[in-house]
Amino acid sequence: MDLTTIIGWGLAIFLIVNGITLPKLGNFYDVPSILIVFGGTVAALIACYPLNILKDIPKHIKVCFRGKGYNIPKTVETIVDLAMVARQNGLLALEEKAEEIKEPFFHSAVLMIIDANDPDKVRSTLENRLDEMAARHEEARGLYLKGSALAPAFGMIGTLVGLINMLKGMNLSGSGGASTLGQDMSVALITTFYGSLLSNVFFHPIAQKLAVRENEEELYGSTVIEGVLAIQAGENPKYIRENLLASLKTGEQQKLLAKEPEHNESDGGES
Amino acid sequence: MDLTTIIGWGLAIFLIVNGITLPKLGNFYDVPSILIVFGGTVAALIACYPLNILKDIPKHIKVCFRGKGYNIPKTVETIVDLAMVARQNGLLALEEKAEEIKEPFFHSAVLMIIDANDPDKVRSTLENRLDEMAARHEEARGLYLKGSALAPAFGMIGTLVGLINMLKGMNLSGSGGASTLGQDMSVALITTFYGSLLSNVFFHPIAQKLAVRENEEELYGSTVIEGVLAIQAGENPKYIRENLLASLKTGEQQKLLAKEPEHNESDGGES
Amino acid sequence: MDLTTIIGWGLAIFLIVNGITLPKLGNFYDVPSILIVFGGTVAALIACYPLNILKDIPKHIKVCFRGKGYNIPKTVETIVDLAMVARQNGLLALEEKAEEIKEPFFHSAVLMIIDANDPDKVRSTLENRLDEMAARHEEARGLYLKGSALAPAFGMIGTLVGLINMLKGMNLSGSGGASTLGQDMSVALITTFYGSLLSNVFFHPIAQKLAVRENEEELYGSTVIEGVLAIQAGENPKYIRENLLASLKTGEQQKLLAKEPEHNESDGGES
Amino acid sequence: MDLTTIIGWGLAIFLIVNGITLPKLGNFYDVPSILIVFGGTVAALIACYPLNILKDIPKHIKVCFRGKGYNIPKTVETIVDLAMVARQNGLLALEEKAEEIKEPFFHSAVLMIIDANDPDKVRSTLENRLDEMAARHEEARGLYLKGSALAPAFGMIGTLVGLINMLKGMNLSGSGGASTLGQDMSVALITTFYGSLLSNVFFHPIAQKLAVRENEEELYGSTVIEGVLAIQAGENPKYIRENLLASLKTGEQQKLLAKEPEHNESDGGES
Amino acid sequence: MDLTTIIGWGLAIFLIVNGITLPKLGNFYDVPSILIVFGGTVAALIACYPLNILKDIPKHIKVCFRGKGYNIPKTVETIVDLAMVARQNGLLALEEKAEEIKEPFFHSAVLMIIDANDPDKVRSTLENRLDEMAARHEEARGLYLKGSALAPAFGMIGTLVGLINMLKGMNLSGSGGASTLGQDMSVALITTFYGSLLSNVFFHPIAQKLAVRENEEELYGSTVIEGVLAIQAGENPKYIRENLLASLKTGEQQKLLAKEPEHNESDGGES
Repeated sequence: MDLTTIIGWGLAIFLIVNGITLPKLGNFYDVPSILIVFGGTVAALIACYPLNILKDIPKHIKVCFRGKGYNIPKTVETIVDLAMVARQNGLLALEEKAEEIKEPFFHSAVLMIIDANDPDKVRSTLENRLDEMAARHEEARGLYLKGSALAPAFGMIGTLVGLINMLKGMNLSGSGGASTLGQDMSVALITTFYGSLLSNVFFHPIAQKLAVRENEEELYGSTVIEGVLAIQAGENPKYIRENLLASLKTGEQQKLLAKEPEHNESDGGES
Repeated sequence: MDLTTIIGWGLAIFLIVNGITLPKLGNFYDVPSILIVFGGTVAALIACYPLNILKDIPKHIKVCFRGKGYNIPKTVETIVDLAMVARQNGLLALEEKAEEIKEPFFHSAVLMIIDANDPDKVRSTLENRLDEMAARHEEARGLYLKGSALAPAFGMIGTLVGLINMLKGMNLSGSGGASTLGQDMSVALITTFYGSLLSNVFFHPIAQKLAVRENEEELYGSTVIEGVLAIQAGENPKYIRENLLASLKTGEQQKLLAKEPEHNESDGGES
Repeated sequence: MDLTTIIGWGLAIFLIVNGITLPKLGNFYDVPSILIVFGGTVAALIACYPLNILKDIPKHIKVCFRGKGYNIPKTVETIVDLAMVARQNGLLALEEKAEEIKEPFFHSAVLMIIDANDPDKVRSTLENRLDEMAARHEEARGLYLKGSALAPAFGMIGTLVGLINMLKGMNLSGSGGASTLGQDMSVALITTFYGSLLSNVFFHPIAQKLAVRENEEELYGSTVIEGVLAIQAGENPKYIRENLLASLKTGEQQKLLAKEPEHNESDGGES
Repeated sequence: MDLTTIIGWGLAIFLIVNGITLPKLGNFYDVPSILIVFGGTVAALIACYPLNILKDIPKHIKVCFRGKGYNIPKTVETIVDLAMVARQNGLLALEEKAEEIKEPFFHSAVLMIIDANDPDKVRSTLENRLDEMAARHEEARGLYLKGSALAPAFGMIGTLVGLINMLKGMNLSGSGGASTLGQDMSVALITTFYGSLLSNVFFHPIAQKLAVRENEEELYGSTVIEGVLAIQAGENPKYIRENLLASLKTGEQQKLLAKEPEHNESDGGES
Repeated sequence: MDLTTIIGWGLAIFLIVNGITLPKLGNFYDVPSILIVFGGTVAALIACYPLNILKDIPKHIKVCFRGKGYNIPKTVETIVDLAMVARQNGLLALEEKAEEIKEPFFHSAVLMIIDANDPDKVRSTLENRLDEMAARHEEARGLYLKGSALAPAFGMIGTLVGLINMLKGMNLSGSGGASTLGQDMSVALITTFYGSLLSNVFFHPIAQKLAVRENEEELYGSTVIEGVLAIQAGENPKYIRENLLASLKTGEQQKLLAKEPEHNESDGGES
């Protein structure tokens, strides 16, 4: 479980409430303002997207809170295991092993090489799927980027509504109208505050978290593709591990390669 | 019919009117302001684009309200049917079936493989057409993005007109000039309000909806191209279905693959 | 002649003057403000670009007002005619026909195939020229985009000049200084008004119109390239027409294909 | 020498001073404001870039004022001359001619074909060098774009410093504090004025001029590469000239082609 | 050690403090404001990124202060040395030399050619690693760009908090409420000041410095790749040096080539 989004939100809200000071918290609560900014942003997003994208919002939120979805070092180990099996007993021997792989993309990739497809076809098919997944994620992310642009705009629309009403009312009651000027103006500004908060504390982090998850998925996907093609090409398992791990951070890589010698010894005979 | 744009618009306007409060709705009605913002934005768009792009605006609006135009799962089924016919009776047997396909892009794609064109030529010709469609849609979308940028600009031009007139008039009537200051200023701000509304509630959602439709069309087009080429290559109908469905969402894909076994059985003999 | 730019400008100016109201039009006339905004923007553009780009400005303006420069349906017909001649009498028979083509790009493209150049070379040479034309147009368009960014900036510089002078002068004359406050401020704001107008009504539309023209030219250029290469490859004139017309809008395309049968009959013998 | 940058700067400053009016010029001179905006922008740029990029600033400024560095029509003539020599006496005969070429890129390109390198290698090596030159220029240009973004930011920082100090001091001296309000505020606004001026009159034009120079260099470089490869391929000098000139403006091209006949006659025997 | 970031920061802070003037420095110190802007920006960044990216922040800061990490001229010399060894004694003779290379990318590149891998595979593997390094650096840089966008937003949120509280409180104490208006407003503006400073003085320079480092690494990486492949291809060491140095600045290049003759003489016999 990835708690950084929740921790970040909690911390941001705590610090802002601390800046407001508790007794004045009531100054920042105004129902019509909430409706204009939150409701207006949601309404504009509904106008922007068809139902089949909108109904995936709960999934996106879940992705943000989910822990790192793809354990790439473990995936590399699985690929190396498969490569050793394939080297000793041929690609068909992978059939049994493939059943143990739960993740659908990896599973179908292994099935493709068992079916003895042409390497070029395997690559183009899998890369195509990866591209289509990325395009869908990009579209999902666009929803939150759009939200982060619309929220301040509805904040300003709300402030303009407040200001115009306030200014229009001013001369009706003569100079006495100015007595509530400060209060009216503070209400007008609340919507700008809401819009800015909604954009920077809510929408931006979600859009960014989705982008990070997308990168992870892409890295996972290309690791699987390269690994599966290397298995098909009958490459040395040691070389496969080393090459796939180059895509991890240098630091993590060192730790993983430290474990290498024992494997080296175990597959030493065949390389 | 895709109602989200209408629902979103209705909701946004309801919430803003709720924020204004009904008795004060009159504060937000000012004819010259409407003319400057709405008229000015339209005028600048007319200056930006030649007639042949402007006259397609009704079509674009219709596209936004049209339901999902392309039923991709059904298209995949049609492609699978064609593939089975082609496998049993050859490509020429598709001629009859092609007559039943109404959608012009799919129709002409099937005709191309019946005419025994070279696969590379089929791909390049169809991809070219798809690219040109996309370029035209992109140009159409640009019109609304431009509108969403021009509307707030004309809102500000209107506010400047109001402010300059107001400030210029102030010293003519001495200190008494300030008595209508609030009202004058509220009128000046109305144009900014109009511009912001026009941009965020009208232009942005249309531009975004067109982008979503464009993505759907692109997905449809590439499904047709891949499918038709797979038919021409004489691939296994089962494999064609599986591969084309990878482009749909994982969720929808599962539902569709659930129907697969029966087909598997029916074409089991030939795979 | 393409009147939309002039109509758009006229309409925009009429609506803004209507918002100002005629008797107050004098409020918006201030010579030093005009010099700062218009002159300053022009001065900054002069500083941005060398002479050989600046001296093409009249040409760019002319392009905006010129009607649709390229008649693509007619170009396609010419290509189809050339294809029929080439099929019957060989590529050398095009020499005479080539003399009738006035447009230099099309003319040189036809000459290249008469000279029996290698198809790859014809394509790369013509695409290179097209790319270089596009790069020059992009550079020209950049001038107006830069102008649309500089104009509001000089508007703000002018407003700051006005505000600083006004505020500095305020305490010199005691409380009496406030008597001209409104008027001084209105003058200060005029430059912002000018900058916004110059950017949104003048520069933006010109930049956009140039982009539209560029797209037309690109479509024309690629139609010529594909057509000429198809002639060289000795393709069926009927197929050439159909394929080239796919680049036109679906609507226009239908109209053109309606005329097809007679051609079909006339060239039926050779296909 | 390219005077447009100096003329543009002079004109912009003259028009702004004209707007300020000479007697009030003193209002716009404030040493701490100059230090915050100019110094702060320079300080932030120093923090942004390592020394080896910062020390090239004088070179960049020189490039802006330098006249058109590359005489492409003359380069084309040189290439045509070399092509004629190569056709008559072979590539080795170019050695002597190569000594006369001062420009290092052209010189090394000619040496590469004399050394009988493989055409693919010549192209990839020269294009690589061109790309690396472009990347360096892009990095240099980034410095001025960064400056044009930082200058208004430091202008605003300065204005905030002035406003905060002014507002904080207001209640110390009771209502009397307002007597210098105008003057204090005008000083606060001066930094915004400086920042806007620095960005739009200084940084933007330099960044743009460097971009124009970069385009020229790229055009020169690709002319040299295409020309040298055409010489190596032993192409017709007349065709080389015609093809290379297509990269110049249509206008200039006509003038140059007008001179062509005499050359045509002189090299008529060999084509 | 690269001091420009520290020098730039010091200079910027000195100039701003100079603009504030020392006795008024206390006006700019307010704990809740610091918490909203600094804390809020950090909180939003925590919400944006998972832990494994956040924990690399100290590394990024270190990279900014580290001197030029890659000595490319020296790397070129090493490559030339390796090339001479390889030419005389074959690729296997590099094994000993490879041990002396500490930098892991260069080291593994040399090992790859010793292992007699296919040149295409060497290139694709190394370029893949370089791309993955660049993607990771780009992600890291995104953190600071995001920070530079969030800081002013939290500055504005803080100012809105201050303004709303101030305006709400105004009418509670009648006209007397205005007595602290200036001071309250100055406190409200401090957060905008903090946000602007944090963005322009802290986040922007770090993001830019990381970009510069990334370019250096990319240049280093491509130098190593080209060099190692040239060694494998058995090219002339003199030619390798000349070609690789083309990627350095013209100035530095001249200095390095000046040293060339002696090398030329020493390897004259073999070229």
